[in-house]
Order: sequence, then C-alpha cells, then structure tokens
Amino acid sequence: MARSLHAPSPAVGLALSLAFFITLPSLTSAQSGPDVARAYRQANEPSLVRDFAELLSYPNRAFTPEIREAALYIRDEMRAVGVDTELVEIEGASPLVLGTLMVPGATRTLGIYVHYDGQPTDPSNWTHDPFEPTLYTRAMEAGGEVIEMPADGSEVDPEWRLYARSAGDDKAPIAAILPVLRSFTESGVTPTSNLIFMFDGEEEAGSRNLGQYMEMASEVLDEIDIWLFFDGPAHASGRPQITYGVRGASGMEVTVYGATRNLHSGHYGNWAPDTGNVLAHLLASMKDENGNVLIDGWYDTFDPIGAEERAALEAMPEWDEELKRELGVVKTEGEPQSLPERLLVPALNVRGITSGNTGSLARNVIPNTAVASLGIRMVKGNTAPQLRQLIVEHIERQGFHIVDEDPDMETRLQYPRIAKVTGGMSGSIASRTPMTEPFAQSIQAAASAAADRAFAPGSLVISPGMGGTLPLFLFTEVAGKPAIVVPVANHDNNQHAPDENLRIANLWYAIDLYAQLMTMPATVF
Amino acid sequence: MARSLHAPSPAVGLALSLAFFITLPSLTSAQSGPDVARAYRQANEPSLVRDFAELLSYPNRAFTPEIREAALYIRDEMRAVGVDTELVEIEGASPLVLGTLMVPGATRTLGIYVHYDGQPTDPSNWTHDPFEPTLYTRAMEAGGEVIEMPADGSEVDPEWRLYARSAGDDKAPIAAILPVLRSFTESGVTPTSNLIFMFDGEEEAGSRNLGQYMEMASEVLDEIDIWLFFDGPAHASGRPQITYGVRGASGMEVTVYGATRNLHSGHYGNWAPDTGNVLAHLLASMKDENGNVLIDGWYDTFDPIGAEERAALEAMPEWDEELKRELGVVKTEGEPQSLPERLLVPALNVRGITSGNTGSLARNVIPNTAVASLGIRMVKGNTAPQLRQLIVEHIERQGFHIVDEDPDMETRLQYPRIAKVTGGMSGSIASRTPMTEPFAQSIQAAASAAADRAFAPGSLVISPGMGGTLPLFLFTEVAGKPAIVVPVANHDNNQHAPDENLRIANLWYAIDLYAQLMTMPATVF
Repeated sequence: MARSLHAPSPAVGLALSLAFFITLPSLTSAQSGPDVARAYRQANEPSLVRDFAELLSYPNRAFTPEIREAALYIRDEMRAVGVDTELVEIEGASPLVLGTLMVPGATRTLGIYVHYDGQPTDPSNWTHDPFEPTLYTRAMEAGGEVIEMPADGSEVDPEWRLYARSAGDDKAPIAAILPVLRSFTESGVTPTSNLIFMFDGEEEAGSRNLGQYMEMASEVLDEIDIWLFFDGPAHASGRPQITYGVRGASGMEVTVYGATRNLHSGHYGNWAPDTGNVLAHLLASMKDENGNVLIDGWYDTFDPIGAEERAALEAMPEWDEELKRELGVVKTEGEPQSLPERLLVPALNVRGITSGNTGSLARNVIPNTAVASLGIRMVKGNTAPQLRQLIVEHIERQGFHIVDEDPDMETRLQYPRIAKVTGGMSGSIASRTPMTEPFAQSIQAAASAAADRAFAPGSLVISPGMGGTLPLFLFTEVAGKPAIVVPVANHDNNQHAPDENLRIANLWYAIDLYAQLMTMPATVF
Repeated sequence: MARSLHAPSPAVGLALSLAFFITLPSLTSAQSGPDVARAYRQANEPSLVRDFAELLSYPNRAFTPEIREAALYIRDEMRAVGVDTELVEIEGASPLVLGTLMVPGATRTLGIYVHYDGQPTDPSNWTHDPFEPTLYTRAMEAGGEVIEMPADGSEVDPEWRLYARSAGDDKAPIAAILPVLRSFTESGVTPTSNLIFMFDGEEEAGSRNLGQYMEMASEVLDEIDIWLFFDGPAHASGRPQITYGVRGASGMEVTVYGATRNLHSGHYGNWAPDTGNVLAHLLASMKDENGNVLIDGWYDTFDPIGAEERAALEAMPEWDEELKRELGVVKTEGEPQSLPERLLVPALNVRGITSGNTGSLARNVIPNTAVASLGIRMVKGNTAPQLRQLIVEHIERQGFHIVDEDPDMETRLQYPRIAKVTGGMSGSIASRTPMTEPFAQSIQAAASAAADRAFAPGSLVISPGMGGTLPLFLFTEVAGKPAIVVPVANHDNNQHAPDENLRIANLWYAIDLYAQLMTMPATVF
C-alpha cells in the first residue's frame, strides 16, 4: 500500500514538498480518537462556531481573484493543525489546496476530498450578505431569529443555523477537520491511516482543472487507497447517510427567435412569432406532465443498477411523503417511484427561462427571443455529449434549424424556426462505486458508529446513489480508485440557493464522523 | 354644434377658465394653412428638431412626480402659441393638459387627443439614456451614426432619427402641433374649426383616470363633434394611414408553483415539480404552433366586421412579405391571413416569462415558481373580464387550482397544481368607429392631401382597425362621439421598446397633416 513518501519527489510543474515526518505520539488505548474529538468539541463549541463563521467570510466563487485568499486561509489553518499543506496552482485556475499527514507504519492511505469554492451568489436574493455569516436560533422559515456569535463559555444550541454561502456546500467539512486534527494533536491521538487532503477550488464551476491538478500531484495521489468525499447533504429525513455514487451534471441553453427586434404587442400581436409560446411548445415536447422525458433514446443511455444497489434502495427509509409535506408538494415527477429511485435515472429540468419581463417590468411587447437554461443530471453510463446530441436531435424533430450563435438575416429568412443551442458538451461525469468493494464495510462501520452517537442508533442510511454531483469520476473512472461520499450537511441547507445554511448539530456530527474515519481499525482492509 | 363657450362654466372640481376670445385675423385666400405651415417648417427645420429634443428630455412615466414637469412644459408651450391651456388635476394622478382654441363663427369643434406619458424604461437596455435625446443619421440598425443637434441654417436630412422614449409614442404630435399653430399665428391663418386639445398623462398606464378627467371637463368636451387621435405608427409599408378602430389591451400574470423553495437540481431533479416545464405545458395548451388560441370560446367573443371594413381590408396594400423580410421572419401566426386581418381578432401573447435564471446567472436549481406575463389585445365586443374568465376556466381545465395570492402550506398540500392569476380584470376597451359616418370622407380627404404631398400621391392607407391600443372607447363607447386615429410615427419607431425613435420625415408629415386637418373646408360636415 502506501510506499514511502519520505523522499521529496519532483512533481511535474509543481514545487510541493511532500516530505513530512509525523511527530505525534502513538494512539493510547485509554483515549479513543472519537472520544477525544468529541470532548474537544464540547469544551470549545463557541469558538468552533466563530471559527466556522470566519472561514465562511471568505468569498469563494471559482476563478475570481479573491478565491486565492480563501485558499491561503485554509492552507494556514491546516498547517496550524500539523498538516503539511501547499497551494498547487495553474495559471488562471483556482488554487488546489493539498495537504499530507503521513503516519509512520500506516498501511493505508485515505484521500479526503472537500471543495472550498461556492456557487455564484446574487446578494439581492439573500436575506443577509452571503459572505457575512449570520447566526440564527433555528432555520429562518421555522421562525429563527438572528443572534450574536457566542462568547466563550456560553451555551451553543445545536439547532442554531449559520447562514452564509458554502455553509453546507462545502465548507462545513473544513470547519470539522480542523478541530478533529487539533484535538488529536493536543491529546496525542494518532490517525490509523495516512491522510491526504485535497481542497478543490472549482467544484461549483465543474472542477475543470481538477484532472490536470491530479496529474500534477499524481505521485502523492497514487498512494491513496480509498477516496472519501466530504460533500453533499444528509438524507432528506435528516438522518446521516453515506453514498456510493453521484450523478453527473451538465447544462445547456436553448434560445428561440421571433422578429429581429421586440415588437409592439398591439401592432403585431396575433401575427408575429410569439417567442414565449414557441419556447413553451418546445419545452413541453421534452417532458410530459408526469415527468417522463420524451426525448427519443433518453432512457436507453445508462448502466442499470445491480442487485446490491437494488437491495440498498429497498432498505432506504420511505421518506417521500414526509418530504412532500415539508416542501409543500402534492404531486412529484415519476410518481409512484420514490426519490432514491428517481435519482438513478438521468434528469432533465428547466433551470431558468427568460423572455421579456414580468411583474412591474412587463411591457406590451412580443419579446424577440425566449431563452431556457436546461439542467441535465447524468447517471453512470451517461456522457454530456451523448445527452446533448439526443436533445439537439429532438429539437430538430420539432422543426427547428439549429445554430450555435445568433442567426444572421440570411439564416432567419431561410428557416421558419431557429433554435440556438449552446453549452452541454462537457460536464461532470456520473460515478458509482461498487458496494461489493472490500472497504465498503469498514467505512460503513465507522460512519454507523458516528451516526449512532450523534443522531440515534441505526440512523445511518446507505444510499446507492445521491442526486448531486461531485467530480467523483476523476477518482473512480479516471484514476481507478474506489470512492465513497460521506456527507454531513443538513438536507435543508439551501445549497446552490440563497440563504444557504448549516445546522450546528450537523457540524458536531461531522466532528464525530471524521474522528471515527481517521481512527478506523487498521486491520479491516 | 359648438354653443358659446364665452361664459366661464363651473366645471366639477375644476378651476379651469375656458373663456377665450380668438384674436387671429381670418383666413386669407392667398395663403392656405398647409402652405403656411410647410413654409414655416422649411424655414425652421434645425430649431424644430432641437425643440422636439427638448420636449423629449422630460421624463414622462405616468404617476411619477416628475411627469408634472412635462405637463407644465407642454402647457407653457401651448400657451405660447395662443392656446388657452390649463392643467386639470386629480390627486395622485398624472395631470391632464387641456387646451382650447375657439374660432369665432366656427360651426364645428375638433377634439385632438395626444398622450404625453411614455412606457417604463430600463436604461440598461437602451443604447443611450432614454431621456437624453440622441440624433442619428438614420436608424441604428441601418448603420446610423450619432450626430450633433443641427445649428440654425444647417441642412436637416429627413432620414435622420431622433432617439428617446416617446419620440414615436406619443410626443411627436406635440412637436408638430406647436409649429403649425405658431405658423398660423405668424401668418394670420385661422383654423376652420374650434380646437380642443387634450394631452393624456396616463395612456401607457391604461388611462385609468381619463374617464374621471373627461367628466370633470365634460362641459368643454361635450362641444366636440369628432375626436382625432394623434397617436400610433404609420402603416408597416411606411405609408401614412388613418384608422377607424383600435384594439383594447389588458395584461395578466400566471404563476405556477413547485416546492416551497428552490431545490438543488441534483438532489431533487427528476422528482420535484419542474416549474418551467409545468408552465411550458400550460402556455402550450393556450395557443397552438400556428397561432390559434385554443382557449374555449376565445373566437366567439367579438363583433364581426361589416362590409365597409371588409372592403377597406381588401384595398390595403399587401405588405406581409415585405414586413417579414424586414423583421427576419419566415412564418407568422395565422398564416395565410394577413396582418390587417389578424388585427381584427383578439390576440393572446406572452409578454414575458421569468423563472430562475439563464446565462451566466443560471444555477443548478429547480426554481420554486415560474411566472408568465400574458398580453391580451381585444377587438370590438371584447371586455377584459370576459377574456380573463375564459383564460381562468382554461387554466382550471388543465388541472390547476386558481389562487389570487401565493398559496399557503395548507393550500399547497391540497392541490397537485396551483396557479396564481393576477391582473386582467380591467384594461382599455377596443373601439371601431363606423366608416359610414358622414365626417369620414372629410377627414380622409384632408389626410390624403397631406399624404399626397409629404409622401406620394395615393399613398394614404385606410385601415379599418389598428393593432395598438388607445383609450378610444371613452370617446366612442362612453361619450358617444366618432373618433378617427391619425398616426404619424414611422412604423419602425420601436415604441414600447428600447431605442424608441422618430424619423424626421414623419415629423414633417405630421406638420403637413395637422395643418390640413385644422383648415379643412368648413362645409364638408
């Protein structure tokens, strides 16, 4: 397994010193890692909340100049808890933060993936500035009220919520890794595996440089036996979960055209192409009212699930009715199939439509374009170009001439219907790690122990595939390693949306969980 | 006809002195009104362009505080050309500007309607500030370039365009009325009719107080024999036109609901209601791909046209193919029916759709609402509540529960599909003045003479109904007067849209036309 990393290796284009000699005393039987981490947390809850808020105050949109500040902050905090950490940088990319903690005698190396970048924010839709973390007594929609950050020695209610971009997706793991390692250092606990931490700065922008970063750091990363993905939310029931797969994601945009300019709806209404209606017919043709995608070949594109996945699916809690009550929904797409089943087939939905204006800005015009942004979620076996091609062929079958830029006059006068299609050629690829892998039981046992303690006995949910997207394929499909997703965020964390938040109890669970995983018995695999 | 207006009359709530003794010398046969006005224009073209720009620089959104400044400016300019002009005001409304020019011995009174308010503007979509009038050598899309305002004595190219909100809709008539009256005063020309000018400040906001204003001023307005509406664009061919009818307009908004909050499209995509798709199915159900409205009863709601209208329709120029080439359109709604035919049936189109975001702001969410703003154009016989009711019943037949405010949780959990419908209860009513009225020939003759001179012999188009909307019904249906619409703006003036503009040649036509109308032979009716 882990060969010696003691000799510095010249990584391609990367001046990264990976030499690190562990100086921690070895694990004492009197104090287990999970106990130590929990005791440390209980003694320091107010400062852990404040530290989390500080981490969240760093703007972290991928490819912005300021994201490097966030990367440097994480590097310094990781160094402070004894992890040899460096920025790996590609010009024009967001830095990768790479940390190594090598344990003498360890026969196993865990890779730990977290991303520190966040979704774009439109502050006008947020209750507070997305980078001014704000503490609430509970969720806003449950009547939570703003409170001050807790002073040392005060009580911290685990139902509190901290609101800020990336609170749930995906800075919470960073806020939990740091105190776990600090508690280990202070109490002399040694992890049972070598640990390699990789903090991705481009996940919400498609991790487009991660493949190259992983090549640059391959000498280190090749040592890894299993990747653990610290990302994603808990099961919708609120129960913790681990997941063996993720969906891939891509997005594309379709624009339909009317006249060359907006037309007065009085002078031309009933005659000029009604772009909103044209787009409506096109979108309606793509999916029926029960959520079945009507695009030819859509459901022939992916790998079927195996017996283990089917069994896990059936063992999952029935939570749809509860979720529908919570979300105010009577009818779901694909009924009576459950949410976990629906996550194992490729999804197509409308991320947005813009045409003209509504509300007080609505004007009496026939808009000259109508634009739909389509979100695509892929499952194992799908690729973005494959699904894009099916969609393009579908649009053509609806009578549209396809263009890739706004049509010129000659094109407009040649075709009765024109659709511009952009994007969708690339995207993150879906991944599913076989549940039959030998390490699966080991990870499950560690996660179960943490879940039993932080939530309730037997609370851990084993999910064959989650709906969200992580760049898991780079690890499973490209690098050929097994990978398991180990989420901690509350399921209602509003990730990717305004007023993202983390429930403090979920941060405490993360601390329990990571302490378990970092001190799993060395003999299991 | 016109009874004496010399004695001031106590109008309800209105301190308006209508006493006015005309001091102009009587018409001399040597100098016709149209000749005088044309000569004056030719001698003063640069200053007329600059005066128009000054008029356009007054912001004029109805119900804003600043619109009163625009009203005061018009009042003062009208007074300066000898018209007894006052503001009529209702608290909270935009002022009505009312002017009277009584001619001793006149046996006929013309009412002249213009509106001085404009559509809302979103400056970010304009090439220049909408209230900083900018002169171009020709239309922007024809390669026009910005030029300075012309100095006295310089040449004015009639193909120049002046860009600003309301350049076409509807301040151009004001910029033409003023020089016509100034030329008459300077040259001793007397109009052949009493003239009552009414400048509406709320037309683009539905003229909601105009009915009350007209009651307040009824003692003056009752004197009017015919209303002339100085509004609307020329025929699409660029030829001038007069019109006997207008469509009514109303707007309504439909919102469909998914979950109570935006959902992550990965975690819930394929399961959560896809609001964009739900709205697409609803909109597609309302109108087929050929532009036929599919709402039950839609085409049973209006008055059929008569033989004269049918004949006028058939005499109109065939212009659809030209217009399609100009607008870059191959397929129109309702083909092979022509645009003028399509304007005589009620229209339904999508003014705007908003749901989530597109482009760089698109995020991986399933938006919790999708909103469509519907524009409705009514023809004679339609009322807004009648068409609204048909639409509401249609939405119900698609399985939606109708609400008038955002649904609460109880409502959400009771109905699988919910649509909020707002607006649409009121709107301007369509109007069509019979072409068989005795004054029709008189107005047609005057307009033909102006069109022959300013454009080309035989260029005037007689249209039974225009597509746009004016508060004509208050005059025809409520006050029981005949009314004819006499437009002057170029058809491609971008009214209601960004980069609205007026072609200078159309301002010169307006001067010819108004001079003809104000000096029509007194004997015709």
